[in-house]
Amino acid sequence: MRFPAILRANEAGEGDQNGPLPEGQRVGFAVVAMGRLSVEQILPAFAHSRKAKLAALVSGFPEKLHVLGRQYGLGADRLFGYEAFEKLASVDDVRVVYIVLPNSMHKEFVLRSAAIGKHVLCEKPMATNSQDAGTMITACKSENLKLMIAYRCRYQPHHRELIRRVQSHEFGPVKLVEAVNAQNQGDPNQWRLRKALSGGGSLPDIGLYGLNAARATLGEEPVEIQAQLSSTPNDPRFREVEESVVWTMRFPSGALAALSTSYGTHRGSRMAVHMDEASLILDHAFPYHGQRLSLVRARDGLETETIIDVPANDQFALEIDHMADCVLNDRAPDTPGEEGLRDMQLMADVYQAAQSGTRLQL
Amino acid sequence: MRFPAILRANEAGEGDQNGPLPEGQRVGFAVVAMGRLSVEQILPAFAHSRKAKLAALVSGFPEKLHVLGRQYGLGADRLFGYEAFEKLASVDDVRVVYIVLPNSMHKEFVLRSAAIGKHVLCEKPMATNSQDAGTMITACKSENLKLMIAYRCRYQPHHRELIRRVQSHEFGPVKLVEAVNAQNQGDPNQWRLRKALSGGGSLPDIGLYGLNAARATLGEEPVEIQAQLSSTPNDPRFREVEESVVWTMRFPSGALAALSTSYGTHRGSRMAVHMDEASLILDHAFPYHGQRLSLVRARDGLETETIIDVPANDQFALEIDHMADCVLNDRAPDTPGEEGLRDMQLMADVYQAAQSGTRLQL
Amino acid sequence: MRFPAILRANEAGEGDQNGPLPEGQRVGFAVVAMGRLSVEQILPAFAHSRKAKLAALVSGFPEKLHVLGRQYGLGADRLFGYEAFEKLASVDDVRVVYIVLPNSMHKEFVLRSAAIGKHVLCEKPMATNSQDAGTMITACKSENLKLMIAYRCRYQPHHRELIRRVQSHEFGPVKLVEAVNAQNQGDPNQWRLRKALSGGGSLPDIGLYGLNAARATLGEEPVEIQAQLSSTPNDPRFREVEESVVWTMRFPSGALAALSTSYGTHRGSRMAVHMDEASLILDHAFPYHGQRLSLVRARDGLETETIIDVPANDQFALEIDHMADCVLNDRAPDTPGEEGLRDMQLMADVYQAAQSGTRLQL
Amino acid sequence: MRFPAILRANEAGEGDQNGPLPEGQRVGFAVVAMGRLSVEQILPAFAHSRKAKLAALVSGFPEKLHVLGRQYGLGADRLFGYEAFEKLASVDDVRVVYIVLPNSMHKEFVLRSAAIGKHVLCEKPMATNSQDAGTMITACKSENLKLMIAYRCRYQPHHRELIRRVQSHEFGPVKLVEAVNAQNQGDPNQWRLRKALSGGGSLPDIGLYGLNAARATLGEEPVEIQAQLSSTPNDPRFREVEESVVWTMRFPSGALAALSTSYGTHRGSRMAVHMDEASLILDHAFPYHGQRLSLVRARDGLETETIIDVPANDQFALEIDHMADCVLNDRAPDTPGEEGLRDMQLMADVYQAAQSGTRLQL
Repeated sequence: MRFPAILRANEAGEGDQNGPLPEGQRVGFAVVAMGRLSVEQILPAFAHSRKAKLAALVSGFPEKLHVLGRQYGLGADRLFGYEAFEKLASVDDVRVVYIVLPNSMHKEFVLRSAAIGKHVLCEKPMATNSQDAGTMITACKSENLKLMIAYRCRYQPHHRELIRRVQSHEFGPVKLVEAVNAQNQGDPNQWRLRKALSGGGSLPDIGLYGLNAARATLGEEPVEIQAQLSSTPNDPRFREVEESVVWTMRFPSGALAALSTSYGTHRGSRMAVHMDEASLILDHAFPYHGQRLSLVRARDGLETETIIDVPANDQFALEIDHMADCVLNDRAPDTPGEEGLRDMQLMADVYQAAQSGTRLQL
Repeated sequence: MRFPAILRANEAGEGDQNGPLPEGQRVGFAVVAMGRLSVEQILPAFAHSRKAKLAALVSGFPEKLHVLGRQYGLGADRLFGYEAFEKLASVDDVRVVYIVLPNSMHKEFVLRSAAIGKHVLCEKPMATNSQDAGTMITACKSENLKLMIAYRCRYQPHHRELIRRVQSHEFGPVKLVEAVNAQNQGDPNQWRLRKALSGGGSLPDIGLYGLNAARATLGEEPVEIQAQLSSTPNDPRFREVEESVVWTMRFPSGALAALSTSYGTHRGSRMAVHMDEASLILDHAFPYHGQRLSLVRARDGLETETIIDVPANDQFALEIDHMADCVLNDRAPDTPGEEGLRDMQLMADVYQAAQSGTRLQL
Repeated sequence: MRFPAILRANEAGEGDQNGPLPEGQRVGFAVVAMGRLSVEQILPAFAHSRKAKLAALVSGFPEKLHVLGRQYGLGADRLFGYEAFEKLASVDDVRVVYIVLPNSMHKEFVLRSAAIGKHVLCEKPMATNSQDAGTMITACKSENLKLMIAYRCRYQPHHRELIRRVQSHEFGPVKLVEAVNAQNQGDPNQWRLRKALSGGGSLPDIGLYGLNAARATLGEEPVEIQAQLSSTPNDPRFREVEESVVWTMRFPSGALAALSTSYGTHRGSRMAVHMDEASLILDHAFPYHGQRLSLVRARDGLETETIIDVPANDQFALEIDHMADCVLNDRAPDTPGEEGLRDMQLMADVYQAAQSGTRLQL
Repeated sequence: MRFPAILRANEAGEGDQNGPLPEGQRVGFAVVAMGRLSVEQILPAFAHSRKAKLAALVSGFPEKLHVLGRQYGLGADRLFGYEAFEKLASVDDVRVVYIVLPNSMHKEFVLRSAAIGKHVLCEKPMATNSQDAGTMITACKSENLKLMIAYRCRYQPHHRELIRRVQSHEFGPVKLVEAVNAQNQGDPNQWRLRKALSGGGSLPDIGLYGLNAARATLGEEPVEIQAQLSSTPNDPRFREVEESVVWTMRFPSGALAALSTSYGTHRGSRMAVHMDEASLILDHAFPYHGQRLSLVRARDGLETETIIDVPANDQFALEIDHMADCVLNDRAPDTPGEEGLRDMQLMADVYQAAQSGTRLQL
């Protein structure tokens, strides 16, 4: 179905006329763990999806299953405790398991998913260490199942436009990349601040976004890393995990990156890519919404800054739809397990560089 | 279900934990007419809704019904041609008819909806003339049915925050209101440019937003109107309807408004409310997304401009949910038929003032 | 003297290498009246000028003359009371008299300047009525002297860039112009609020900027005017003069303008020009500094907003230098007495249209 | 002289009523070297100064002296070749020598200035190495003369407001500082790219701004440094000096800084200070004009971003006036030679850390 344009041809596009897939053709997902992220973001995102549907819930809290099952129209036969996870095997229209558990539990459930023949979408960071990440990849590979890591920003339209423009080389080579992602963590008792559960502090939870975005934007892997950590002494939030990290990386092209993250400051989230002839700036780079892309350059002898109004969508819906599309068309995700493993290794390198105080050659 | 905050208490709110209503408790809507607005905006909006569900489609094009019915999971028993509209009477879970037809057909379908006992949500402008608007109100009233006009901006969070702040009087009385809404219409043959179908040009289609927003923001009705029209000679788009309108209004409080609209310029959409101690500016005021609210004032002897990041949602979903909520709780909509009629009368006044060249005292 | 560029050729221009004229070649100005505008803006502006110099001061307050003469290095032979104004005749290097008196006194001092053979730069509004303005023009003409009205924005680089781009027609014809200029007047006893001294309220003092800018931007004269006034009852500031004005104008090209001004709101100052393919927005349009020019248009199907960083200068210095240049090269100012007269007549038309409540055909 | 406010008390301040000092009371400066910076920025800045005056020029080019002397009203007795520099000794009203030579020549002329009993304002970087910097300090100290390094940003109002707010601790401790300063150098033959003349590449010329600003904002000295350099192979601009540097620092409070600079990208200039409850962002941080300060924080549960419109002035005039004020009131400059030396040492540390690949403990 195509409608003629209402506006003149020189105006911006008028909207997307692609309808959603009918329910019956969509890929069913089981979501595992009903914490804040699932309830506030992921479950609602299925309504914005075009190719995926919510088909089952897994939680350790029967009351949550009851309430959410009612809200989302899922009967008792689609609600499972952790111990009954394997019963998903026989829910035919569940083709993907979306794992939203604390990081330390990712491995167990990826392995259990693989064992019952389900594809996996796993939240980032992929695991709490590279060894687990490798095990997870092998488990899915050996069953010929897809494993995608939920790097939602990689499916976000502003990020994709940024990457497209940088890699078009229309502004010459990249020389510097800056990225920061920071927020002010509250409750000292949340699992993100327990190292055994999270694997680390600000770095794997939010600093990871800048790391991944820098690699994706440059389309290169870093060859050198240096890092420094800091935690406020006696702050009960940072007994086990780091508060702040600053780190720098060199890439084969000669590009340098300066990145930072913190669990102890007001929200800050931005990425800047400085090229020969222009800079691309992504403000509000990594939150769930509010991305703003601007292009800074000189034109006709005058400095200009152009905000490019990229149409946005629910980030989780885009990510889920990418996974659904991979299943429907049997193709590899843009952010497979190997991408998650690469970041796990690099984060281990960041920690090692910080501890040793020396530059790591990769 | 409530989750503890992840962030510190002095950070912004972390998201909405209210889940949607279960399917069975939602209010069913039949959408009438499958044009661009329905297909691109309204049908997808039901997925973002929390209290409403799409329950039937009405169209003059069987092929559209077929395709959209499949996409949205509606069987043949929920798809109707215009001639079969009255069969909706027996579709029990359709409680509201959402009329998205060309303006001139609103009256007929409001009356047909009322005749079969269905509440009505009707697109703006309500009708092509005030007389029809009055007839529509009477028809719904006499059947004890709700009639809501689809002023989506009135349910948009930035607009509501603007109105709340102005009416709190924290910045003193309003002296001036500015509003502009303009876009560059294309195809000269579209129904919006046929006066018999639309009732007018830029004024009823897009200028209406500024008119309604000015009234809602001030919480007053204008007492004087002056206006000027202009259309580019020989532009095939403006053979029947006006291209541009500028008009001014005085309100009982003494506030003045300067408003403008055009069908012949690049997109422009903004509202400014100038008060004694501050101005509130709503940029991208009336499009489907992208609203930006800023507060301009002096603090500590320095001029400041504060962007207030109001969380936004799909505007049509908010509007639909308001109607659903009115049905569920038997309350009157914030923008009932009377609100639509008031604007119809005022737009007639704008046209009359423009033609006569004299100030209209209301 | 020319220096090679430090930066690459694709970067913005690196600065202006034109030095100032030597003192002896500059045009000397006598400034008349040592009120706030003179002391805070105009006297310091001579230091930023390249072609003008401060050569004499005229004031009714001997103490002010004493203090300012010392600050600016002017001896007693260059300081004059109003009664001794004619002694300027024999100060050879004073070639221009800059009149910064209350509006009602402009005429007297233009005439006295003409009588002693000095060119005149006169603050806006030119006078308190059109008849005086005509007399002033005739007086200067008959002595073959230049008369320039101090429309500083017309010499401001952002304004000039806006006008240049609009009149290049690269974005098609103008359909709508919006302008607002508002501020919150304080002390009810200041001369600006005494009608006999000022000639009016917000309109001639600050609304005039939008009027003049609209005409200059379109390069056309309005053919129709409508207007509405409003003043808060019992506000001691508005016993004699109007608080707020909104007015609309039609131009021969079909362009419409919606303008507003107020003496009773927080500072608001903006101009928008809506053309077929783009809008040009000038924020902070009329204050002494802070202008911001942006171009809104669609590119490659995406909406864009480009801030164009126009190098700015002290506005009064630019205006003074324009006058100096006219004297040095015997050319007519861009804003001669006739330009001031045109605005005086149009402001009289605005008042008449407001009072009559009918559209004025010009 | 004080004028009553025109605007209401709740509006922003209306301007500065402090007049300039009379010519005879001002501090005379001799400017040494008539390159681009002098001609385009520093000589014109004296006109904006309130306490300083241009009293002599020193250059190796007689033609430049001739032209500029005429423009600035300086007779032959105030124009000197480098060889005649010592004749300044007898120009009584020259109390300060402002050295704008290539970096490698700073030492010689500071010493020659001290030898003839003149105070010194010296451009940054202070020297090409720390040893020279120490010699320069000693030379001035032993003659009881003031030595100020021309860190113009330290006298710029946005920077001062940023520092004031950070150090007020109203938003809690600083956790992260980001700064970038980059531009795209052109002509490979300019002296800035000759190591013997400049002492280094992007770091001492423009990266220095971020380094100095980070220290000034935190009010602390770094205790650890790590760094990485990069230069595009075969780029003729970077045969002798580095193109880009990224470096990180830890401060005693625990704050971390991530800084970067480049001579090979489009202009980028920004500083961000992330504190517990807010971030302060300075855009266009280090150019000659265009600074924009914003405060990002949550209020009432909503994220806000407030642009604080700090009145700006010519940066060089502010810097010059600071030096003049120090001379007039016999006080120490805010950025004395010791401040320049500290940065020289830290830049040497950055280079050493980059070369060694290990963290430097200071």
